[in-house]
Amino acid sequence: MKKYIACVCLVFLALGGVIAQTNTYKQDSTLIREIYTEVLSNGEIYENLRSLTKGIGHRLSGSYQAERAMHWGADLFRKYGADSVFFMPVTVPSWSRNEVAVASAYLTGGKKVDLHITALGGSVQTPKDSPIKAELVIVKHIDELKGRKDVEGKIVLFNRPMDPVLINTGAAYGGANDQRTYGAIEAAKVGAIGVLVRSLTHSLDTVPHTGAMRYEKGIPRIPAAAISTVDARMLARFHKEDPSLEIEMTMNCRKYHDVEQGNVIGEWTGSEYPNEVITLGGHLDSWDIGEGAHDDGAGVVHTIETLRLFKEVGYTPKRTIRFVLFINEENGNRGGKEYARLAGEELEKGEKIYVAAMESDAGGFSPRGFNLDAADQHYDLFKSWEKLFEPYNLFHFKRGWAGVDIGPLKKLEHRPFMVGLVPDGQRYFDFHHTANDTFENVHKRELELGAAAMASMIFLIDKHLPTTK
Amino acid sequence: MKKYIACVCLVFLALGGVIAQTNTYKQDSTLIREIYTEVLSNGEIYENLRSLTKGIGHRLSGSYQAERAMHWGADLFRKYGADSVFFMPVTVPSWSRNEVAVASAYLTGGKKVDLHITALGGSVQTPKDSPIKAELVIVKHIDELKGRKDVEGKIVLFNRPMDPVLINTGAAYGGANDQRTYGAIEAAKVGAIGVLVRSLTHSLDTVPHTGAMRYEKGIPRIPAAAISTVDARMLARFHKEDPSLEIEMTMNCRKYHDVEQGNVIGEWTGSEYPNEVITLGGHLDSWDIGEGAHDDGAGVVHTIETLRLFKEVGYTPKRTIRFVLFINEENGNRGGKEYARLAGEELEKGEKIYVAAMESDAGGFSPRGFNLDAADQHYDLFKSWEKLFEPYNLFHFKRGWAGVDIGPLKKLEHRPFMVGLVPDGQRYFDFHHTANDTFENVHKRELELGAAAMASMIFLIDKHLPTTK
Repeated sequence: MKKYIACVCLVFLALGGVIAQTNTYKQDSTLIREIYTEVLSNGEIYENLRSLTKGIGHRLSGSYQAERAMHWGADLFRKYGADSVFFMPVTVPSWSRNEVAVASAYLTGGKKVDLHITALGGSVQTPKDSPIKAELVIVKHIDELKGRKDVEGKIVLFNRPMDPVLINTGAAYGGANDQRTYGAIEAAKVGAIGVLVRSLTHSLDTVPHTGAMRYEKGIPRIPAAAISTVDARMLARFHKEDPSLEIEMTMNCRKYHDVEQGNVIGEWTGSEYPNEVITLGGHLDSWDIGEGAHDDGAGVVHTIETLRLFKEVGYTPKRTIRFVLFINEENGNRGGKEYARLAGEELEKGEKIYVAAMESDAGGFSPRGFNLDAADQHYDLFKSWEKLFEPYNLFHFKRGWAGVDIGPLKKLEHRPFMVGLVPDGQRYFDFHHTANDTFENVHKRELELGAAAMASMIFLIDKHLPTTK
Repeated sequence: MKKYIACVCLVFLALGGVIAQTNTYKQDSTLIREIYTEVLSNGEIYENLRSLTKGIGHRLSGSYQAERAMHWGADLFRKYGADSVFFMPVTVPSWSRNEVAVASAYLTGGKKVDLHITALGGSVQTPKDSPIKAELVIVKHIDELKGRKDVEGKIVLFNRPMDPVLINTGAAYGGANDQRTYGAIEAAKVGAIGVLVRSLTHSLDTVPHTGAMRYEKGIPRIPAAAISTVDARMLARFHKEDPSLEIEMTMNCRKYHDVEQGNVIGEWTGSEYPNEVITLGGHLDSWDIGEGAHDDGAGVVHTIETLRLFKEVGYTPKRTIRFVLFINEENGNRGGKEYARLAGEELEKGEKIYVAAMESDAGGFSPRGFNLDAADQHYDLFKSWEKLFEPYNLFHFKRGWAGVDIGPLKKLEHRPFMVGLVPDGQRYFDFHHTANDTFENVHKRELELGAAAMASMIFLIDKHLPTTK
């Protein structure tokens, strides 16, 4: 009889478990549907992106526009009801491209062909009142320069395209950007006086793509510019027929003193576990051409819209949610580093635990899913949410890169549950770091769907991530 | 001992099965990777779409351009090595919008506001030398007209937007297009003299979207035009304040005699089962504004590129593959119907069995997966291929609509295994049936990925679908 009762109890317990699970699933899926309905019916995200991109425009760290964008972001956090809004001071670099960079190819026989270039971020200028002019050396990989004697006094064109057969365009970008990042260092080591880098894009056009480059202590700092894919291809063709053609290049860009700007933070204190912090964000700074619409205006407004959506659907977070607009992702990541440094201090003092973080910095395109960067034990929890996103066509639930800004949080003693939003990536590098990264190239519904995906993921993390208590 | 031997045998058999399965999976995945690599490295699809859209342009059934497009398609099938290329004659309707349609709103007090309209496909013209001018009635649903007495002599605006909260934009389109298809019939029944239909798009802009509309025998044929979403919204606002405002409308469109055109077919005879036919296609005709780039230039070049890809990767189909460019999808589907009628005849005579069909008619956007429309027993086979497409971010493997052109094949006695290519749908209705459906709005890599998805699916069907023998 006892056995029988025990059996019945077990069955009821199991049944209870199944029912509870089903109810939880229903509640979760209902709230997620409300989030999607709200953003698709009454979303303010698209108009907020318009205001950021058209009202302020591009906003490189240290610029006046970045300063304005900080206040713009703080105002929106206040408007949408964050408990507290503040700036986290960050000392950021200041660099300006000043007048437009120009370059031309001089072919043997006197023909001059103007090239589409733009300075790489951080590059030094060409000598005042005397542009550099030199013969061209073309390589496909920085390794090809090692030990060469014939580069002395020349300009190097790095001309390796992004690999078109990789489906993940981010991986193709990652596979080609050593040229941009380290090209000037390696070229200078063998005596080059300037560098041109084929733009990092699959698109064959005349638009140069800027981006960060580095110098190394003890190696001469030589000017470095991005050149459009069409021009790079053309130069390679010219050079085959006419190896002594010369390149002339003038750039006025330069570095100024560091300035104090900061991360913009809207905080919503948790109702149950206020000392457990979930961070979500995008970066407020952008390159100084275009409008920083996909990179990373989209991430900025995804973040702000998540706050608005939670308020509209009436979700009260258990944890403290920090909506963060990071500064200086593009040329230093000092915003992300400072955020993690302070988080580490709070963790050490036992004041706060940064339990989770999410970033949107891959554009405002139709979302495909999420990358997870977390300890192994969290993977099953993450995968258990997959089904909830099926109705919204989100199927990408994989381990992967979560984001540059939240990256430094990974090194904290308590490693957070880190997620990156993964939008469709086929078009991203058409616009990335160019004059074409404008509001017009962001699609309203795709942007809205990204915000819904982000808000839904933050909701699930807040609700289901086990407490550290 | 016997038992022991039997056991060992079973284990080996099972192991053999697993190894065979693994080998098949590897072979399949290798060929699919080759298809993707080929199209992303050397794809000719984008330039073929340029040639169709820029060289010929839009191509409504019955037009000279449709005729030219037929020869263009046949030439490409020959160029890429189809065993035989032929036209399947189809008698198609002929309708022309002639001069641009114009409409204006006359507000009380004399102010005139010009409207962005375009004739719906198949509409009659307004009376010669006398535009229609009448007061406006606005409804959100055709049912609202039933039994009304106050519509007599007026112009009706159907103003129900597509539902923004549906994730599937095709479903939102389906939920709103009764207005366009049946609006003129229902309005005429209650005495209206003309119809304006809010354009079927989520986009808020000044671009009218055309599309097919119907008349009913015995009901007066009244002129019907699409009006842009911005204008529809504006008219609704005006009308609230000024219910006696008048609309004036002039259209010159009209129907002409039917002409003989046809489906364009490239055939590749099967190496093992030549009497089993796999059909794949898109429709060659388009509306007569824009360039029919997404609708359905993309499907046309997806189809042609599949032939090229098979030749390049060296895949020899077991079944007969028919690459079909259907005529008259937009305003009659006579091409699809004739194709199925002849297929039925061949089936009856025991000459051929149409075992499978696939269509691409949802745009050239980043592919998400496939819809299956087939008998239940085929579902598991279809789902078993899902894993092969994971590396290419295709996750949508669902039962659903396969396509208009291949639709009539469904009624054959031997129901084919029917598949529709499913691209991301968020942007499709921005361009659909408008002057903006141009080559510039198709993305090269996204188009290429669509072709690879189509070719891979046809390969799997050809290889794995059980023979009817």
